[in-house]
This record gives sequence, C-alpha cells and structure tokens, in this order.
Amino acid sequence: MKVEEEVHGGNIYRTIEVAVVDPPSPITKLSPTAVPDNNSDDDFFIPPLNFSMVDNGIFRCLCPEPYPEANAQFVKSNGIQLFQFGIEGCKEPFVNIPEDTIREALQVVLDVKNHPLLIHCKRGKHRTGCVVGCLRKLQKWCLSSVFDEYQRFAAAKARVSDQRFMELFDVSSLKHLPMSSCSKR
Amino acid sequence: MKVEEEVHGGNIYRTIEVAVVDPPSPITKLSPTAVPDNNSDDDFFIPPLNFSMVDNGIFRCLCPEPYPEANAQFVKSNGIQLFQFGIEGCKEPFVNIPEDTIREALQVVLDVKNHPLLIHCKRGKHRTGCVVGCLRKLQKWCLSSVFDEYQRFAAAKARVSDQRFMELFDVSSLKHLPMSSCSKR
Repeated sequence: MKVEEEVHGGNIYRTIEVAVVDPPSPITKLSPTAVPDNNSDDDFFIPPLNFSMVDNGIFRCLCPEPYPEANAQFVKSNGIQLFQFGIEGCKEPFVNIPEDTIREALQVVLDVKNHPLLIHCKRGKHRTGCVVGCLRKLQKWCLSSVFDEYQRFAAAKARVSDQRFMELFDVSSLKHLPMSSCSKR
Repeated sequence: MKVEEEVHGGNIYRTIEVAVVDPPSPITKLSPTAVPDNNSDDDFFIPPLNFSMVDNGIFRCLCPEPYPEANAQFVKSNGIQLFQFGIEGCKEPFVNIPEDTIREALQVVLDVKNHPLLIHCKRGKHRTGCVVGCLRKLQKWCLSSVFDEYQRFAAAKARVSDQRFMELFDVSSLKHLPMSSCSKR
C-alpha cells in the first residue's frame, strides 16, 4: 500500500497542514486555481479534490506535498496563517499516528479565532481523515458514522489502522475546549 | 443496477425529501436515533449514513423510504417542515430526471428562510446527489469537482446518467435567487 511520505535528510516525515483564512469567504479565498475574473459568466471555481465542509468554518481537502510554491505565495498574499504538524510516516501495519500531534492540530481546528480553516494533507484521506474523525468523536458521533465519513474520503485506501487510532483516541483532555461555532450538544 | 423505487397504485415514483429544521442545531435536532440523555458521558449521536454538511445551513444524508413513521412523528413534534418532491423512477439507461422538479427543490434549498435544511433520499446518492450537484453548478463549481463530490457519495453506484443530467442542467433561471448564507462569488 502506498504511503504518502517524503525523505528529507534521512528522516521520513509527513505533515498535516491546517490553513487559516481571513476573511470568511472560504471557497473563493482558498482556491488559488480559480480562473481569473475576466468574464464572470465563464468563471468557475476549481475546488480541490476531496473538498468538503466539515462544520461551520471548517473545511477539508487534499493538497500536493511538498507544499506548492504557488500555494505558499497565495497564502502569504492573502493573509492566511499556515499551521504545519509533522507526523512520522510508517507503512501499514506499523502505522504510528502521534496522538499528541493530532491533539495539537485539533486545538487549532477548534479555536474559532482560526476560522474559516482548511484541513489538508497529500490525499485528504488518512491524516486529514484522522483529524476529522477525532473531531467527530469530540462531537460525540457514534463510531459507525465516524468510519462512514472516513471511508467516504479514503475509499479503496481506507486503513484499519487509522480507524483503530480513531476508536482508541482519548478526547477527554479536549472536552474543555469551546466549540461555539461547531455543532455540539 | 438497483433503482430505488416504489410502486403505489401502479405508478412508479421516487421522492426527494427536503426537511427544514427550526431551531438551528442540526445534528441534535435531525437525529431521531440519538440515544436519550440519561447519562451525558455515554450519549452518542448517530448521524445517518452519507450524512454531510453541504454548505452553511444545508445538510445531506440518506433516509429510508417510504418515510418512516418515527421520522414523521419526530418532524411533527419538533416543528420541522417537510417538503417532498416526487420524481418518476426509471432504470438506467432510461433515467429521466425531471429538471423542473430539481429546480423546485433547489428553490427550497436556496431559500435561507428554510435553513437549517436536510436534503435526503433513500440512499443519499442519486437524487440527493443531483440536487447538490446542481447547487454546485449554481455556485460555479467546475464539473470535475461536482462529479468528485457526487462520486464520493454514490461510490460504486455512480451513474453516468446522473452526471450527464448535472452537466446539462441549465442554472440560468435560478441565478436571480439570493444565496446569502451560501458560499458565492
């Protein structure tokens, strides 16, 4: 099974990127590939593949790795804050997802000051899927619905190891975080 | 290929249901299957399969057909307005999706007075996928991203006929509608 990873200086790593956008017009602002506004009738948005709304102010998609120069420039020129979370890459069946890093990413995701916000990784399947799945656990979704959502994006690349990670992920340390813009009980 | 259809009085029909919810706490309010609130630590939400946020105030999922009695009671007791749009069922390759009915459904979906709102059909794949796909066209998504989203929900049941319908769907008569709560250019 293909694992999205890069080798830099002998260290294999993967990143979860979390981009924060301001002001709040996510599709317009997050699409560096949008066709220039020459003729409004013929302009189209080109949302990235695996693009979806996760919750109020929270979106997900895939993004090429390493982070494209065009995106870096777009982010800079539009005042978008980029959070990068390195995750060590391990191939199945030895996938070792660092729970603390996922927790750090979730703290960024849950902070409404960072919204609107786009979660992405190379395929928008595994690392993004785990972050979103752990968010759903915090929102008290039952596991079968968490996995249904994960599998919709991962499709044929769905990993039992990711799903086991989400099942075992302990949300208790995050329960104190406010989720004012997210769906909550 | 299995087509979701019912025969009543000799007429084959299918329905698109569009449920409008008030007040705005969609997951809580839209889940008649949520476990009663006996013990808040052990309660979970059970979002329906193929459940997803489409846009601000707009959600999608599957729903059994005919419309379950439990749902009908839940809708009634929670002041939820139910819109039903009958669509004649035809098996591929003779699928005939009534463009006018999709347009009527879209007018309900786009009216922010009806938000939060849940779009659903039996599988949350074909009819719901077409309504959402036509909404994306109105939002000026490129077709490849419209189809990417459609296929994520339809998976192995994706239909070329649905995608052809979305491609040919003429949004010009809907462009005058306000989309104040939706992502728009």
